[in-house]
Amino acid sequence: MEVALETNAVFVGIEYLAIFVWGLSGGLSAVRKRYDLFSILTCAWMTALGGGLVRDTLLGDLPPVGITDKGYILTCLASGLVVAVAHPEIMRLKWTMVAIDALGLGLFAVNGTAKALAFGSSGMTAVFLGMATALAGGLFRDLMVGEVPMIIRDKHLYAVPSLIGCILTVIVYKIVRAGTVGMQWEMALDVVIVAVVFVLRMVSVACNLTFPGAVDRGGGASS
Amino acid sequence: MEVALETNAVFVGIEYLAIFVWGLSGGLSAVRKRYDLFSILTCAWMTALGGGLVRDTLLGDLPPVGITDKGYILTCLASGLVVAVAHPEIMRLKWTMVAIDALGLGLFAVNGTAKALAFGSSGMTAVFLGMATALAGGLFRDLMVGEVPMIIRDKHLYAVPSLIGCILTVIVYKIVRAGTVGMQWEMALDVVIVAVVFVLRMVSVACNLTFPGAVDRGGGASS
Amino acid sequence: MEVALETNAVFVGIEYLAIFVWGLSGGLSAVRKRYDLFSILTCAWMTALGGGLVRDTLLGDLPPVGITDKGYILTCLASGLVVAVAHPEIMRLKWTMVAIDALGLGLFAVNGTAKALAFGSSGMTAVFLGMATALAGGLFRDLMVGEVPMIIRDKHLYAVPSLIGCILTVIVYKIVRAGTVGMQWEMALDVVIVAVVFVLRMVSVACNLTFPGAVDRGGGASS
Repeated sequence: MEVALETNAVFVGIEYLAIFVWGLSGGLSAVRKRYDLFSILTCAWMTALGGGLVRDTLLGDLPPVGITDKGYILTCLASGLVVAVAHPEIMRLKWTMVAIDALGLGLFAVNGTAKALAFGSSGMTAVFLGMATALAGGLFRDLMVGEVPMIIRDKHLYAVPSLIGCILTVIVYKIVRAGTVGMQWEMALDVVIVAVVFVLRMVSVACNLTFPGAVDRGGGASS
Repeated sequence: MEVALETNAVFVGIEYLAIFVWGLSGGLSAVRKRYDLFSILTCAWMTALGGGLVRDTLLGDLPPVGITDKGYILTCLASGLVVAVAHPEIMRLKWTMVAIDALGLGLFAVNGTAKALAFGSSGMTAVFLGMATALAGGLFRDLMVGEVPMIIRDKHLYAVPSLIGCILTVIVYKIVRAGTVGMQWEMALDVVIVAVVFVLRMVSVACNLTFPGAVDRGGGASS
Repeated sequence: MEVALETNAVFVGIEYLAIFVWGLSGGLSAVRKRYDLFSILTCAWMTALGGGLVRDTLLGDLPPVGITDKGYILTCLASGLVVAVAHPEIMRLKWTMVAIDALGLGLFAVNGTAKALAFGSSGMTAVFLGMATALAGGLFRDLMVGEVPMIIRDKHLYAVPSLIGCILTVIVYKIVRAGTVGMQWEMALDVVIVAVVFVLRMVSVACNLTFPGAVDRGGGASS
């Protein structure tokens, strides 16, 4: 599989870091609700690897990496153990967490889309699968602890930057395959995409940017 | 694949209409909770195509049509955009919505069952997959916005008409394959089944017909 | 498939009994919320066979047994009908229910793991799939009725005994395949594993044993 970003050690490092941070965020949800250690580990795993689980299931690449990749799974378990001990410190690292989470959002959107394209999906299907990779983990985390999913509830841009990242990944893939630019550009452009998603997310949180809702016409929606 | 109803332009039209109406119903749930436009579109898509997603995943027909069929997906997105603007009007169209939703219920039950049979499923498996097609979308919609699923909560008949429709579809399929009646009857009989599901659902809502619950023996269930 | 326990009539009997009891537990959730008979049957089916549904989907063994095995499905439907009538009596059988549920927990953990191994999964993947078999049904039950999943919420050991059972099953499988002990020992050792899971669960409930949560450092988690 020619998933460009996966051949680069820096990106593999960021991927593990993102899984670790997503694991922390999942574990933290469980700690806040005072669940036991097993539930903390389960929430960490579901949050960090649930997106890939959905992507691989819909792609038919079974069993999914979320239950087969030792490195990923150990990273999740480590993050769960860390959060069980260091939760007060981690809660204070709010901005660091938001930043690494945003990096993971970009990285998983790009990697999920690239994996789908490498499996022969159409561009549109790859966008859906890239978004599933980036978003489904957080969805599972919130369902597990009985909250309305953050991607639905959060007013800041979260899903939209990942959508833009997925679409840009497809465009870059098609340009490279068409021979317009050389293969060596693919990774460089993918890096730019991760940066774009990251910046969009951070700016949205920092500047309180939100996406418009339904058109308010003083009518039925206020009930 | 010899899914009889899919070869008929009228039914294809009703299918798109049903996807559109299911998309409206999903989008409306998100509008009511004052979520942003992205969440409205996500809920519209999940509601309208989530059933087929489950059917195709369990059938092993991957990736599922819910992320590959451009026509279906654009229809969902259109319904989300329409509901974001026209939600006050749509809320007033209650009976029209209930009627088209009931038409979709019948149509998806028949089509989901027929697809499973065409893939070589047994009758019982086809009934399960037909019901998954008809019911899973609404289930996802309700989980997304944090409500107990309507198929569990609604007192009117909803799942039961779709079950009857799935069983009748299997019977018709077996009769036709046994050569008892000609192939040309399959579509006519499938139309009758859609009508039966539609009428059962509408009569249930109009006449406040409900399905019995557990036997009330003045005991533990009241706690 | 060489799933040792499935060749033994006693274990097949316990399996049906476990499905029946899990069906009762699912149906009871629906009865408590005063849902109709259809919802009772749906909850019974989802609780009893949802775990195998997840296992087979992730394993790629489609369509899953939860929608293809007539015996299993009829057992679920029967349990739903029984609970609809006899719910006051069943609620009074608390300890019998806990005991048979614990037997099912051990049996499904062992059988789910063994099925995954028979399909060529690695030990780690088989542990995940064994736990999915043992735990996902209860997860679905709780999501359907809008409660935080019991595996997250319950203070007593539930997931941990099943984890131990899955790991032991993998160890036994590897020892037997390595030729250290004969094949005829596999079933005997699997029986011991089911007993270990059962005893761990029962002791945990009886003696109010719980698994530790996050380390309480008087900090953020109390908010």
